[in-house]
Amino acid sequence: MKEMLKTLEVNSLDELMEHIVPKSIRSYSELKCPTNMGESEALEMFQEMMGKNEIYKSFIGSGYYDTITPSVILRNLLENPAWYTPYTPYQAEISQGRLEMLLNFQTMVVGDLTGTGFANASLLDEATAAAEAMTMCINTSKKGQTKFYVGTDLHPQTIEVVLSRAEHYDCDLEICAPENMDFSKAGDVIGVLLQYPNTTGAVFDYTELISAAKEAGSKVVVASDLLASTVLKPAGEFGSDVVVGSSQRFGVPMGFGGPHAAFFACNQQFMRKMPGRVIGVSKDSRGRPALRMTMQTREQHIRRDKATSNICTAQALLANMAAAYGIYHGPDGLKNIGSKVHGMTKVTEAGLAKLGFGSKHADYFDTLHIDTSAVNGSDAVVKAALERKMNLRKIDENSVCVSMDETTKPADINNLLSAFAMAKTGNDTLPTGVDAESLSSSTDTTVSAKFARSTEFMTHPVFNSHHSETNMMRYLNKLSSKDLGLQTAMIPLGSCTMKLNAASEMIPVSWPTVGKLHPFAPVEQVQGYMQMMQEMIDDLADITGFHTVSLQPNAGSQGEYLGLKVIAAYHKDNGEAHRNVCIIPVSAHGTNPASAVMSGMRVVTVKCDDLGNVDFDDLTAKVEKHSDNLSALMITYPSTHGVFESNVKEVCELIHKHGGQVYMDGANMNAQVGLCSPGGIGADVCHLNLHKTFAIPHGGGGPGMGPIGVAKQLAPFLPNHINAPNSGGDKPVRAITAAPFSSGSILPISYMYIRMMGSDGLKLASEVAILNANYMAERLRGHFNILYTGESGFVAHEFILDLREFKKHGITEEDVAKRLQDFNLHAPTMSWPVVGTLMVEPTESESMEECDRLCDALIKIREEIQEIIDGKADKDNNVLKHAPHTADACLADDWDRPYSREKAAYPLKYLVDNKFWPTVGRLDNVYGDRNPVCSCPPLEAYED
Amino acid sequence: MKEMLKTLEVNSLDELMEHIVPKSIRSYSELKCPTNMGESEALEMFQEMMGKNEIYKSFIGSGYYDTITPSVILRNLLENPAWYTPYTPYQAEISQGRLEMLLNFQTMVVGDLTGTGFANASLLDEATAAAEAMTMCINTSKKGQTKFYVGTDLHPQTIEVVLSRAEHYDCDLEICAPENMDFSKAGDVIGVLLQYPNTTGAVFDYTELISAAKEAGSKVVVASDLLASTVLKPAGEFGSDVVVGSSQRFGVPMGFGGPHAAFFACNQQFMRKMPGRVIGVSKDSRGRPALRMTMQTREQHIRRDKATSNICTAQALLANMAAAYGIYHGPDGLKNIGSKVHGMTKVTEAGLAKLGFGSKHADYFDTLHIDTSAVNGSDAVVKAALERKMNLRKIDENSVCVSMDETTKPADINNLLSAFAMAKTGNDTLPTGVDAESLSSSTDTTVSAKFARSTEFMTHPVFNSHHSETNMMRYLNKLSSKDLGLQTAMIPLGSCTMKLNAASEMIPVSWPTVGKLHPFAPVEQVQGYMQMMQEMIDDLADITGFHTVSLQPNAGSQGEYLGLKVIAAYHKDNGEAHRNVCIIPVSAHGTNPASAVMSGMRVVTVKCDDLGNVDFDDLTAKVEKHSDNLSALMITYPSTHGVFESNVKEVCELIHKHGGQVYMDGANMNAQVGLCSPGGIGADVCHLNLHKTFAIPHGGGGPGMGPIGVAKQLAPFLPNHINAPNSGGDKPVRAITAAPFSSGSILPISYMYIRMMGSDGLKLASEVAILNANYMAERLRGHFNILYTGESGFVAHEFILDLREFKKHGITEEDVAKRLQDFNLHAPTMSWPVVGTLMVEPTESESMEECDRLCDALIKIREEIQEIIDGKADKDNNVLKHAPHTADACLADDWDRPYSREKAAYPLKYLVDNKFWPTVGRLDNVYGDRNPVCSCPPLEAYED
Repeated sequence: MKEMLKTLEVNSLDELMEHIVPKSIRSYSELKCPTNMGESEALEMFQEMMGKNEIYKSFIGSGYYDTITPSVILRNLLENPAWYTPYTPYQAEISQGRLEMLLNFQTMVVGDLTGTGFANASLLDEATAAAEAMTMCINTSKKGQTKFYVGTDLHPQTIEVVLSRAEHYDCDLEICAPENMDFSKAGDVIGVLLQYPNTTGAVFDYTELISAAKEAGSKVVVASDLLASTVLKPAGEFGSDVVVGSSQRFGVPMGFGGPHAAFFACNQQFMRKMPGRVIGVSKDSRGRPALRMTMQTREQHIRRDKATSNICTAQALLANMAAAYGIYHGPDGLKNIGSKVHGMTKVTEAGLAKLGFGSKHADYFDTLHIDTSAVNGSDAVVKAALERKMNLRKIDENSVCVSMDETTKPADINNLLSAFAMAKTGNDTLPTGVDAESLSSSTDTTVSAKFARSTEFMTHPVFNSHHSETNMMRYLNKLSSKDLGLQTAMIPLGSCTMKLNAASEMIPVSWPTVGKLHPFAPVEQVQGYMQMMQEMIDDLADITGFHTVSLQPNAGSQGEYLGLKVIAAYHKDNGEAHRNVCIIPVSAHGTNPASAVMSGMRVVTVKCDDLGNVDFDDLTAKVEKHSDNLSALMITYPSTHGVFESNVKEVCELIHKHGGQVYMDGANMNAQVGLCSPGGIGADVCHLNLHKTFAIPHGGGGPGMGPIGVAKQLAPFLPNHINAPNSGGDKPVRAITAAPFSSGSILPISYMYIRMMGSDGLKLASEVAILNANYMAERLRGHFNILYTGESGFVAHEFILDLREFKKHGITEEDVAKRLQDFNLHAPTMSWPVVGTLMVEPTESESMEECDRLCDALIKIREEIQEIIDGKADKDNNVLKHAPHTADACLADDWDRPYSREKAAYPLKYLVDNKFWPTVGRLDNVYGDRNPVCSCPPLEAYED
Repeated sequence: MKEMLKTLEVNSLDELMEHIVPKSIRSYSELKCPTNMGESEALEMFQEMMGKNEIYKSFIGSGYYDTITPSVILRNLLENPAWYTPYTPYQAEISQGRLEMLLNFQTMVVGDLTGTGFANASLLDEATAAAEAMTMCINTSKKGQTKFYVGTDLHPQTIEVVLSRAEHYDCDLEICAPENMDFSKAGDVIGVLLQYPNTTGAVFDYTELISAAKEAGSKVVVASDLLASTVLKPAGEFGSDVVVGSSQRFGVPMGFGGPHAAFFACNQQFMRKMPGRVIGVSKDSRGRPALRMTMQTREQHIRRDKATSNICTAQALLANMAAAYGIYHGPDGLKNIGSKVHGMTKVTEAGLAKLGFGSKHADYFDTLHIDTSAVNGSDAVVKAALERKMNLRKIDENSVCVSMDETTKPADINNLLSAFAMAKTGNDTLPTGVDAESLSSSTDTTVSAKFARSTEFMTHPVFNSHHSETNMMRYLNKLSSKDLGLQTAMIPLGSCTMKLNAASEMIPVSWPTVGKLHPFAPVEQVQGYMQMMQEMIDDLADITGFHTVSLQPNAGSQGEYLGLKVIAAYHKDNGEAHRNVCIIPVSAHGTNPASAVMSGMRVVTVKCDDLGNVDFDDLTAKVEKHSDNLSALMITYPSTHGVFESNVKEVCELIHKHGGQVYMDGANMNAQVGLCSPGGIGADVCHLNLHKTFAIPHGGGGPGMGPIGVAKQLAPFLPNHINAPNSGGDKPVRAITAAPFSSGSILPISYMYIRMMGSDGLKLASEVAILNANYMAERLRGHFNILYTGESGFVAHEFILDLREFKKHGITEEDVAKRLQDFNLHAPTMSWPVVGTLMVEPTESESMEECDRLCDALIKIREEIQEIIDGKADKDNNVLKHAPHTADACLADDWDRPYSREKAAYPLKYLVDNKFWPTVGRLDNVYGDRNPVCSCPPLEAYED
């Protein structure tokens, strides 16, 4: 560190911070969290805390089911840094492994299980997916269409989130029993959202309803269950336009609510309207099939304030787990699991009938709706079950639901039957013949012919070749070895903070006391979670300088959305519902305007000055112009240009003076922690990307977490949840996620991070992150133009390399990015926030050696650019234009490049001994966008 | 499977077995173990069982200390199949990663921590290492030297194992207090074995004793502690010839006794006499430094019945963990840990003194020997400690020992002091000032100047560059990515059974209820272990058809040794101590004769006939000749030639008729399980390689496990252990390992394997293993000569490819082995049991596709050989001779080979998309043997 400080001509980290962080916002008080704990000590403490969670057998269902994660997937995927540390696969050439697995996910979900044509690479949760489907319907609706039907029999949390989302749209949402949905007034219904099987387990034939809807020009969205689809006629075969749902029960632990991969499958008509990321097949520079994120530059990337969704993150890691689960079991295995679950349900129904309990549905998959009126109400049954460490779902005073899953054993059913017997007779001895074993021989466990699935699914070889653990392990290993993650090299992404995801932070994720909790389990059973979350709220509030924190948003984008929603509610509560102007700098992340639009706001942009700072004059003008209607300003700090702007406090004051609230994008929080805080700066709300600053891994493109901190005046508006009624404020906005605390099972990662870092460590991390960035900027200065710096000449924790001057020589930022792959390096953020540049953020986790390695590579590349400028290398046929170089390209017999193979592959000497090979050549983006293929291509496609 | 059966022209597995397994030995009854359990069910059941183990705070010491495995090492090494599945690094070019880590181990142990000059790549445990050192001294002793001194103050288990080993040597072993060792009768003392610090913790200055010994021409072996060496003058600096010990406390859990890596360090004089494996630096075909097992063809490989040690396996995985621990902490970190442990001990002594308990040693490192006579004996103290969930070590009625370790916290010391207070006063409230915190400020915690270490250690950059988790993770990943393990491809090693090590089998290894148990913990605390071991004994006895099983041997070689020792004891007990002839077929594994020699037997070899079977006539002749002195026959079944010999029963009968016992080498047990059994065949004792047949991973060269099954007449002679007095028979031989049940923490792997396979699965595994081998043999017939088959024309579970016919064209088995690396494949066993051949064992874990991949590669190589035979390819300059091809060699600018780069790297098409690159060219073995360099070379060595 001394050497780095010397390079910067300062004597200490403290001195460096004095230069960089503006005095006006600097905080010198210590963070309140305790000093750092050693990893084994922290693990021990946390294991004890999580030990307070009690694992009851869950029959709650409602979209969350216990499942068995095959150990080969647990160990080789979920617990493997090669899978959990990589970034979103923007650099496709070094991401073919996870791209292939996500394509498997799309293929499995699509056509195959849901019976539709296309699917995206996952969404956040089933409820959000349903809301996204609704907004897609609204955004593609025809004139005169105003009504959107939502079935009464959806999961309550889905209805809640859909209602929440609809608030900001000009749409007449009607919660209505399917049988009462009226399509006769031709043309007034935008669409309809159904659930199949429904929330209490019933399976209805929607053929007629759906054809009526379609005849009336309405769109049909069906929330469905992937496992049910293995044995039941899939929702897509009823003619639905969109099928949404969760893939949780494909091997992903309930985890107190998440993360899980939701899916969004649709027919071809909506392919280009789908929210979220889509993986597709394109060609590479050798003309061979290669995968990439397809239709890439869409939604908030280009449409910004016209975007129809703010979704960025997918739940990639969980989608990959679900896909791996599907691959490991294969179609026959899945069908077996589905049949077994259905059989257990049948057996339970038979047993209950013998005990005198009727069930309400003729057809069902895994859930029974049981009439308990015979026993003086449902509470008696629920209580008897609790005494046997089982959770049921109470529907009303006279009925309960029970859902079976892959883990349900005959003993569990007997236990369940005992509870019902106890409630009825005060004695839990089961009558002869009323036990799972004897019932299973006397019960018809097949699916009724009316609903039985007749179509094949998952016929692609990938789903039929890896059913042994040996093969599965090798497949997972083969894929992950194609991807460059943090286990191989730094990933210096500006604004994405790819820091170490420490093993001790990840270990609790696999604990049963973390994974095996249903999000709607009684609060008495989740005291470990409650304690952790309260401590996190306290710590994050302290770190952000805010009054309190909501853990509900399960992605940064959702944090933005919720923050703006809360601001809107605040204005409304003040009688200023008209305040709807959201001012956003042009340099903002595209998600910002997209979120503003989703929250019903009008976006007004403000310019940046030559130094990259918000143009204060323009801001003043805009603020004054919209003073009466000003709702919020959205800013990022340090700025998206990587600068600690010195007038940020004045900016906040200006907004407040005009009655607005300040929303701070927390993407750059890694430069603030312990040095200054959003609250201290004057912001009113800020989201935290726990997957950036607080060590949750990026998982190859998700999961994320985006809690928001709010100032006191906004706290009353924080959301509750139907299953956690006191978790928010007293004037709450509607919930935005399916689970009360969204992705509960990854919160331990951030919790452990905070505990192991401690107050000093957190601050030191910010300081070292800033030091690393400045050290690199200093080393690269003279070779490249560093675009923006603060008044002191320093950058914050990231900086922008301007490559635009090379454009006239034909060299683009993409060429440099791809050439970096030849050095075993991942490119920095490309062309954001400034087109034609690279934005570098090393983070505190990288050593000087690794920072130097990136600098050395960039300097070498600068030399290669100079060769082109000087005419020593051909303008089109050079190492940059042909980058990245695959092994097979480098040793092709017909090599005809004007540069040597060694220059191509080993531009620096260390590479000879330690080479990470990109597995495909540069992707052809245009071809892929024009010819979207979004499911697994037949194997022949890979033949020459 | 159908396709494979069809290839073999049989209709079913049953039919195939009828052809292959001789009727005379075939068993048709079911194994007694239950039917198979699903993995989650088995894990749940086993977690409950292991939950019966109670984790007490251990102050027992005695060579086993609690330690913290850094999570980065736990997750990225111990739990990573890339580290735990590879084989012993015989194929050096695809093993550079673990070779480098083992070299790090040698370097760390050697010179550096022990202060000697050379070290091997680990041994089985400290006691065995001491015994090996003693035998090395004996074997290199001068005429007239007859006595070997062993200090009275060694760990009791070390003394026991040394005594056990000495039984079979012509040596006068004397257990003697160091101060009474007499070297005045010049020349009669072979050597001396000391311990420093000694078993009760005392540290003595051995300078004088050692110089007296050396002046008298005696050799000096010192058992020592690596962590103590970070702060104390290391044993090597006293002038010792050999330093042995355990590296367990460098991050490897106690695991109820193991596995742990012991070390054997010595000065240059003994370099070529060292037992075990040694890693060294040589050159590769490009002239660059490359690592390999050095002095490779030694000991049992060439000297067989003259070998001085039967050690094959090292504890490679554990040595790698210890090395990683050293690298992660670095010299300063280790010194800090050492100082902290010493400080805690000092503080404890001070606290005990205030409570009125004296401690017996002036100088110590981590262990206090405490006089308890003041409180009516040591039992009172031990009891008070037990009540506080702490284990002490009772030395005698009036004293106990307590040992501190890395995990000892101030609270533990207070707890310990409370126990002493309780024993003394009946009240556990500590007087003011008697608590760890206040004592630590008033106590001098430094090491006394007399013993303080003054020399530097671990100065090599590798120990000073990886102290951050990010760097450590990348280093581990970089190394493992150089190695081909089962996560990448099949490893078809004849007689080594490299089968799947299922994740569910490995998961329990990381459980605290498995890892945090001291091997000498009271039996009440290890009831989970006891239950598992009893079930295993029952299952293994059933599987082998024997009366009972001993779990003591911690490697196959140790099983052989113990088995023969038991046979010798049996003869002696029958009054036939003179029976000492051991007959061994020439085709036997070299360990067999080496073990026989170690057990004091005389080896007589017997020939094989042309079919590869034991030559019955020669056997009869030898047996008759040695009838009076016949002790045992050692055979392998199916034979080492991969054949179910049909007269094996007659062979056993012949031996029995002449008063001998039959020892069966269990290396090929994977072909027997469920089909026949050693007991059923007529053997009297057999070892099982749990790391072959029962799924313990090879760990890149260890750990192994070698329990023995014995017939009823041998059962009384099974060993006990001083810490498990009733675990063996009633006329027990002396123990052969340091811990009662050797490597307790890996037994769960085999246990889970048996439970998840169940009786049917175990039998099916044998059948599929045999099917796979026969399928491959059939596919390769016509391309290669298959050397031996049974009478039916079938092979067993492995087969020999004869390559000797190609020798005249200059092509050796090594060329084929190395060329296979270019196909992402690991070579089969080379030149064993027949020189000039390859022995292929696919195991049941491999799919037909992977079996075909190996066949396709071999057939392709056969074509390449034909090109040479036909003169189409140069005799010396061809793809075989230059194999393996590294990436840098293939794309070198100065490529001048007569074949193309693509032919070199991509002989089959799939390799273009999925290539595993060897990282060095072919090793120069001769150079390495001539110029042994066995510690990390300076970095400059790697410069061109």
